[in-house]
Amino acid sequence: MELGMIGLGKMGYQLSLNLINKNYTVIAHDTNEGALQRFTSDGGEAVQTIKELVNRLKAPRTVWVMVPAGDATEAVFRFLLEHLESGDRIIDGGNTHYKDSIKRGEACNVKGIHFFDCGTSGGVDGARSGACTMIGGDQQEFKEIETLFQDLTVKNGYLYTGPVGSGHFLKMVHNGIEYGMMQAIAEGFDILEKSPFAYDYEKVAKVWNNGSVIRSWLMELTENTFGKDPNLEQMKGIMHSSGEGKWTVETALDYEMAAPVITMALMMRYRSQEDDTFTGKVVAALRNEFGGHAVTKV
Amino acid sequence: MELGMIGLGKMGYQLSLNLINKNYTVIAHDTNEGALQRFTSDGGEAVQTIKELVNRLKAPRTVWVMVPAGDATEAVFRFLLEHLESGDRIIDGGNTHYKDSIKRGEACNVKGIHFFDCGTSGGVDGARSGACTMIGGDQQEFKEIETLFQDLTVKNGYLYTGPVGSGHFLKMVHNGIEYGMMQAIAEGFDILEKSPFAYDYEKVAKVWNNGSVIRSWLMELTENTFGKDPNLEQMKGIMHSSGEGKWTVETALDYEMAAPVITMALMMRYRSQEDDTFTGKVVAALRNEFGGHAVTKV
Repeated sequence: MELGMIGLGKMGYQLSLNLINKNYTVIAHDTNEGALQRFTSDGGEAVQTIKELVNRLKAPRTVWVMVPAGDATEAVFRFLLEHLESGDRIIDGGNTHYKDSIKRGEACNVKGIHFFDCGTSGGVDGARSGACTMIGGDQQEFKEIETLFQDLTVKNGYLYTGPVGSGHFLKMVHNGIEYGMMQAIAEGFDILEKSPFAYDYEKVAKVWNNGSVIRSWLMELTENTFGKDPNLEQMKGIMHSSGEGKWTVETALDYEMAAPVITMALMMRYRSQEDDTFTGKVVAALRNEFGGHAVTKV
Repeated sequence: MELGMIGLGKMGYQLSLNLINKNYTVIAHDTNEGALQRFTSDGGEAVQTIKELVNRLKAPRTVWVMVPAGDATEAVFRFLLEHLESGDRIIDGGNTHYKDSIKRGEACNVKGIHFFDCGTSGGVDGARSGACTMIGGDQQEFKEIETLFQDLTVKNGYLYTGPVGSGHFLKMVHNGIEYGMMQAIAEGFDILEKSPFAYDYEKVAKVWNNGSVIRSWLMELTENTFGKDPNLEQMKGIMHSSGEGKWTVETALDYEMAAPVITMALMMRYRSQEDDTFTGKVVAALRNEFGGHAVTKV
């Protein structure tokens, strides 16, 4: 099978290598010239422009888009929408907002292009050796490319989720759950760190990975990381995020439902990005106003 | 090896069968006559009283206590403290508060009895076929009974955690993490349930268990439960709890540290136990007072 890959970043590169290993012809484009050269030496075919990629593929074309969500994905999508033909397929494998995917699916419909929104999980290692994918799109057309997902993922690691939007929606919620699970694990270790006991965190994570209720891939990663830096002294506790957690909370707000754990996990990420807070200043100032309680001066 | 087991409830019974399978002589007591009869027919030795259990065991005795935390454990412990001898060992395998374990360890010290506080995870299946245990107590004496934990647990499924108290403390935090992880998973499925998409939750949990970041034993249980009741229509969303989550939050309060996700997971359990709340009435009443907003009448 032949596939066009746009984006040779962390995920796109490894997905491509994964497919080359399975005897796919992968024709890839990236704006990074170094990535293209590396890709050629790794057995792929690199092209300088998306136009070239479209010309190089035989119809019906299958093009996987793996570029950052937002403007980058939109620019690639607009170009593809213009240059692809009826019967071609676009798979957006990135972390796109599901509402954007629904709009793109509608735009594709007009031209007879098949659009799939594919949530991709499992990290970089998963992309290389077996990912987990959740795919929305036309069900009949999905069957035409189902082997692609069989080949890319671990056993039982792909799911056709329904119409366009349902794949990225499911991936969004997956990431929201991930936020909550990670924060729960982290709070637990923080309590251990403040306890009177001298736990070896790598050993704790290891025993929890063997027979306990909380055994999980995230706990295995916890074991790995404490193995490398037993008290995480080499880093600061600043937690970044890339959108899906926020979208999950926004979705809960759309539905006017309570999702306090996912919300708090997200808020704690934001809090971690501030050295000090205006909230803290306001509370300290008010305590001083009504009770004369001391404030910490700058 | 010979072991006394006090408590043939869900966990104690399965742990005992697990040990009998590994050629241990297990002499057990329970206040439930039916459990004793069943145990005898399953190859164990049942005794009617703890006194009999103590007499039946050869010194140095090893007695595993697996009864509900609190009064039941305290009563059994007091009896054992009185009737066991110097050199004997008590293992509390229940979900006891670590501060109670520290006190019991000190009381044992006075009589030369060795006390171990053992957190036990993995559920009933784990107890039967391989649990996960975290054990606090004297390190030298632990080596004398280490094979017991090797035999009871899955590979790499036991950890000597430090002095008395450290085992139950670690199990408490494990359960706190479990609360947060479960609530995160549950909120995610709640968002799916309110979404415009018609997900098959069993299939969702299954794909998430194959290659995704959130693959975990809890997600496997999620897959199982949706396999049995696809929309959980057979039950109400009332979430009970048995203490360890509360203790984890109390411990975070002791340390004056932020653990909002574990705390919210606990609070959502409490909320689920109320059909209506006084909080809700107060807020609705205040909205009515200042804005004339409608209240829902009883």
